[in-house]
Amino acid sequence: MPRHRVVIVGAGFAGLKLANDLKGGSVDITIIDRRNHHLFQPLLYQVATTVLATSEIAWPIRSLYRNRPEVTTLLGEVVGVDLSEHTVSLRDGQGISYDTLVLATGARHAYFGHDEWEKVAPGLKTLEDATTIRRRVLLAFEKAEMEPDPERRKALLTFMVVGGGATGVELAGMIAELAHRALYREFRHIDTRTAKILLVEAGPRILPVFTPELSEYGRQALEKLGVDVRTGKSVTNCSAEGVKIGDEFIASQTLIWAAGVRASKAAVWLGVEADRAGRVVVRSDLTVPEMPDVFVIGDTASVVSENGRPVPGIAPAAKQQGAYVAKVIARRLAGAEPPRPFVYHHQGNLATIGRRAAVVEFGRLKLKGSIAWWIWGLAHIFFLIGTRSRIAVAASWLWVFLRGQHSARLITQRETIQDMDS
Amino acid sequence: MPRHRVVIVGAGFAGLKLANDLKGGSVDITIIDRRNHHLFQPLLYQVATTVLATSEIAWPIRSLYRNRPEVTTLLGEVVGVDLSEHTVSLRDGQGISYDTLVLATGARHAYFGHDEWEKVAPGLKTLEDATTIRRRVLLAFEKAEMEPDPERRKALLTFMVVGGGATGVELAGMIAELAHRALYREFRHIDTRTAKILLVEAGPRILPVFTPELSEYGRQALEKLGVDVRTGKSVTNCSAEGVKIGDEFIASQTLIWAAGVRASKAAVWLGVEADRAGRVVVRSDLTVPEMPDVFVIGDTASVVSENGRPVPGIAPAAKQQGAYVAKVIARRLAGAEPPRPFVYHHQGNLATIGRRAAVVEFGRLKLKGSIAWWIWGLAHIFFLIGTRSRIAVAASWLWVFLRGQHSARLITQRETIQDMDS
Repeated sequence: MPRHRVVIVGAGFAGLKLANDLKGGSVDITIIDRRNHHLFQPLLYQVATTVLATSEIAWPIRSLYRNRPEVTTLLGEVVGVDLSEHTVSLRDGQGISYDTLVLATGARHAYFGHDEWEKVAPGLKTLEDATTIRRRVLLAFEKAEMEPDPERRKALLTFMVVGGGATGVELAGMIAELAHRALYREFRHIDTRTAKILLVEAGPRILPVFTPELSEYGRQALEKLGVDVRTGKSVTNCSAEGVKIGDEFIASQTLIWAAGVRASKAAVWLGVEADRAGRVVVRSDLTVPEMPDVFVIGDTASVVSENGRPVPGIAPAAKQQGAYVAKVIARRLAGAEPPRPFVYHHQGNLATIGRRAAVVEFGRLKLKGSIAWWIWGLAHIFFLIGTRSRIAVAASWLWVFLRGQHSARLITQRETIQDMDS
Repeated sequence: MPRHRVVIVGAGFAGLKLANDLKGGSVDITIIDRRNHHLFQPLLYQVATTVLATSEIAWPIRSLYRNRPEVTTLLGEVVGVDLSEHTVSLRDGQGISYDTLVLATGARHAYFGHDEWEKVAPGLKTLEDATTIRRRVLLAFEKAEMEPDPERRKALLTFMVVGGGATGVELAGMIAELAHRALYREFRHIDTRTAKILLVEAGPRILPVFTPELSEYGRQALEKLGVDVRTGKSVTNCSAEGVKIGDEFIASQTLIWAAGVRASKAAVWLGVEADRAGRVVVRSDLTVPEMPDVFVIGDTASVVSENGRPVPGIAPAAKQQGAYVAKVIARRLAGAEPPRPFVYHHQGNLATIGRRAAVVEFGRLKLKGSIAWWIWGLAHIFFLIGTRSRIAVAASWLWVFLRGQHSARLITQRETIQDMDS
């Protein structure tokens, strides 16, 4: 009899964990992704802030499965799902047949109905997002060095990060390090230490998933780095000239969006119910209601854990879902009982502030400062793929830590095309 | 009295050598470049062929002079020179004043009057050129994996390099390694080892600057790697479908141009005589005739050495010219005799074929094979800037050498915009 065909769309943390856990089973796996690489998103902000090179946190998907002949990798863009034909439709017109379909297509950033803001305030989800932000941040300093007009120079040296979650905090902290530590001796007409970095959060406090104590510490650590933290303030307009926070206009040439996400089009492909963030509301076994052969996992799925709280859109949650679906598929093929409903085990929260401080929360264990930073750093190096990347990232961090020199400061691609791509 | 102002346009090998050798003198230096980075061009082909990451062979110019307060770096595009006003005009309208001007603006590749070929046959001069070629080569394999039609698959797996100089040979050799060694276990529908790599050279032999023996060895080494070498054949047409060599049409989706260069617009800016390649014909002290304060050096200068042979457009020649001009400027400021006319000292020729063989020629010393490869490798690591890059490049080579794995295989930017940029 023919082997069972599992098609996985999306090679993020959820999709890869599923493919990895299906190893040794008697299933043929096809992984489809728009990109040729898996991206280690938790460190993407370090590419955007010139600490890491793109190749240090991304790996060609097919190279990860070179020794798994039953795994086929396709570089293609999914545009729909034909449920009656059991096929996934690609942009180039091809259809890929499946017995079991798993959609793990992630999320993009959301602008709360102001998509026109994206051009001036790029978000951070892909390598191109990161190199776009990197280019804009570096170009702002370069233009300021050439700018005779003090007002315009001030706007060029004002960096605005919108969103006080981990990503926003990490971006603001590293931009502050860049301006106040890494760059200041390299310019002759400006003092990069005069740069203003603002972090705007609509909620009452930054790092809301942490305890009030740790988020207060995070705020103080950011302020020590020279970041101006504004909580309880929401952005009412973004333009090429700057940002409107409430009624106050702040001139800034460099805006970065780290607030809110919107799920992929998985719900549209399936024609099923989605929540406000566009995520597919799945059953407790992560299948789509009335579609036992279709799973949706990761940031594009809306999963409610037992305590009634939504499962967060973070890497560990995505991996747990991938592992769970691998178990479901294995049991089905073995004709065994389905496993108990999916339960999310929260391992903790981590966030860094600059190159020395971090906040870490593992259940009752709460840590801050440099010890937390080391735990954070080791944890992330551990989760990277391959010795080579681990060595490379460790070396880059060592350089930043000891020499204060950021090793990934190339400006590539022209700004004129940044809104098309970079 | 005010300090003497030297403006250097172009931070390639010639410009940087000049700025470095002027250290300690009483001159203010302004370096202007369109890019924020100095590029180690001799290894650029390894970025194009997925061996090295962009950040491993490029360095932010201003970071190289962080400890030289008299050196100002400007990211700007020169559009002209006002000789009467002694100013360099930038695209943004600013004028930069100079007492001594040095134009070291390099060269681009040339298409012998067929500029329309550039879109289908990109050359290799900038990081964007390299990532464009890398993306096209990798996408060709990805598309072939998806292509049901055998004819089109064959065209996708045919790679054509035009130009049998060192760059063309090095590109063809590494693409062969990629297809026959690095990738073949990662695809399921195609055998990448069936890929055809062609190297076309109009002249009678490849590597013409080497002795006939060494260029014959190079040809054999390439053929051992599976490269189809065609000498004495010139390209009569390039299109999206393929290449016409003489009357023979060869279907190929991936063309790379490594034949011929055209100098920058320096001659136009100065309104002076240029040779066929657009280079400024300079005097024996590397100044422009009738312009004692204006030097032109590097690939954009036409310099004839004593034996009447033109100085080649290679890094060592550019560095020697930069060093010479530094001496001229220092002597002038000291009121001393001008140095003797510039003499080019040819140190030798190097070229690699794949990841194990190379040809090396130092005067009477001629080497080939793996010993030559090690000499080539050590020489290049030595010439890189900074410990960090040396370690990184050595590590990347080690991985290729021992594991056969290429560590810079990311496809970024979309093909749709490649002709605008990448």
